[in-house]
Amino acid sequence: MGVILIGERINGSFKDVGKAIQEKNKTVIHDWVAKQAAAGADYLDVNMGAASRKPEDFAWLVQAVAESTSLPLSIDCNRLDMFSTGLKSYRDTVGERPVIINSTTAEDSKLVPLLEMASEYKAGIIGVVMDERGSPQDVDRRLELGGKIFAAALEAGVPAEQIYLDPIVMPVKFMQDQAKNVLNAIQQMTMLSDPPPHISIGLSNVASKTEERKLINRTFMVMAMAMGLDAAILNVCDEELMQAVATAEILMGREIYSDAYLKAYRQRVGMASTTQA
Amino acid sequence: MGVILIGERINGSFKDVGKAIQEKNKTVIHDWVAKQAAAGADYLDVNMGAASRKPEDFAWLVQAVAESTSLPLSIDCNRLDMFSTGLKSYRDTVGERPVIINSTTAEDSKLVPLLEMASEYKAGIIGVVMDERGSPQDVDRRLELGGKIFAAALEAGVPAEQIYLDPIVMPVKFMQDQAKNVLNAIQQMTMLSDPPPHISIGLSNVASKTEERKLINRTFMVMAMAMGLDAAILNVCDEELMQAVATAEILMGREIYSDAYLKAYRQRVGMASTTQA
Repeated sequence: MGVILIGERINGSFKDVGKAIQEKNKTVIHDWVAKQAAAGADYLDVNMGAASRKPEDFAWLVQAVAESTSLPLSIDCNRLDMFSTGLKSYRDTVGERPVIINSTTAEDSKLVPLLEMASEYKAGIIGVVMDERGSPQDVDRRLELGGKIFAAALEAGVPAEQIYLDPIVMPVKFMQDQAKNVLNAIQQMTMLSDPPPHISIGLSNVASKTEERKLINRTFMVMAMAMGLDAAILNVCDEELMQAVATAEILMGREIYSDAYLKAYRQRVGMASTTQA
Repeated sequence: MGVILIGERINGSFKDVGKAIQEKNKTVIHDWVAKQAAAGADYLDVNMGAASRKPEDFAWLVQAVAESTSLPLSIDCNRLDMFSTGLKSYRDTVGERPVIINSTTAEDSKLVPLLEMASEYKAGIIGVVMDERGSPQDVDRRLELGGKIFAAALEAGVPAEQIYLDPIVMPVKFMQDQAKNVLNAIQQMTMLSDPPPHISIGLSNVASKTEERKLINRTFMVMAMAMGLDAAILNVCDEELMQAVATAEILMGREIYSDAYLKAYRQRVGMASTTQA
């Protein structure tokens, strides 16, 4: 089992996607579905960003994505009514396909209702280790909140293999000391249970506003994989990033080495999408 | 303090260097000294490879390197008489400059006399975690032998900050499962003492005979850095490798982030060589 790759590109914060949402232009959306599937995404993240605040627009977006792929989706928003609408639209469109709720925090006001939805929709859930006090600066607080979310999710009946903890990646440009804390938190989170929960990050945040975005993204990604990361929301269309991930998979012993392992990895991930389509 | 970069290129196994040793051609040697110094080497490894078995040839090679730089050397061979000759030649050429003995194993027949030399020459020493039973396949045996070397070196009076443990990198192409064991061993070696010993690898071995050598080298390097590696014998002239190292240093919080951190890193490492020159 390799790292679970969640394609980040269907997000209204990108200009082309934002415009497509406003104009209800499915072509742009379908293009990004196809491109990310071909690049090896295991899940497609669907996020309206700031393009609209209307739940019915989110329902439209989820449908537009879901109807054009057999990949499972990661429903990405931060309002409870949006999650309801998005999950309902997804089920109406495709029935019982896997799905991830992206994301809850450790605040009970979000955690409790979102775990109920996870249970209702048999959804996986990403738990970001922050609460009403904000984002943690240290490793211990990350573990404490991660432990809380993990326990609550298990109690709510979410199977361990559907629980993803997110230690919160911060921009290295503005909070440089947090990169190492995230790496350490990843490793310690792998010790929360056996088998451990999934550990997932929103990768691109680490390189936000930097001039070496791709280099920083792929370097942090493989460092995180060494520490035990096994899922990420990331730019699957970044070829060098995917090559670095494929190489880290080999070095972690998760894929069998062959001289053509880059090609083999591409085929495997591409195949996964195609088989499901 | 960043990762200690030991330039691998002055090694008789490379055709040009082997030929230079046989022909006593200092120009080739001096060129590699200059190139590696400019690329940011902290130490220069000096290894005769299979070019000659004569101790006097090693003395010549050490002198040729030492006289043309102010960088400290890593004296790299596997025979006691060669080490004596190399260390003596080094001291005769440059006096009391720092030096690393590269390397001992955990076998008493090597460990005891090489620790005596380390003490005599105030040298650092790299201890490779193997013994008469060969290279370990698992993490525990690596730690056991690492612990033995570390304790023996301390007892022989080598200061902790001059002890380097090498968990033995194997070619991923032929012993794929060892890559992960080395990563785990690195991390556990950092817990041997506080502050921990240096942990060093011969990087290029991981990608031996593969078709994606550079990609595998730089990916493994930053994964190992995430686990606590702080030294490596490597190709400092591989620009993408050095960029990956610089980025990992930023992400580990060992260098201060700036938008121009790649350039800053180059200058810092280049400067280190120049200042000493």
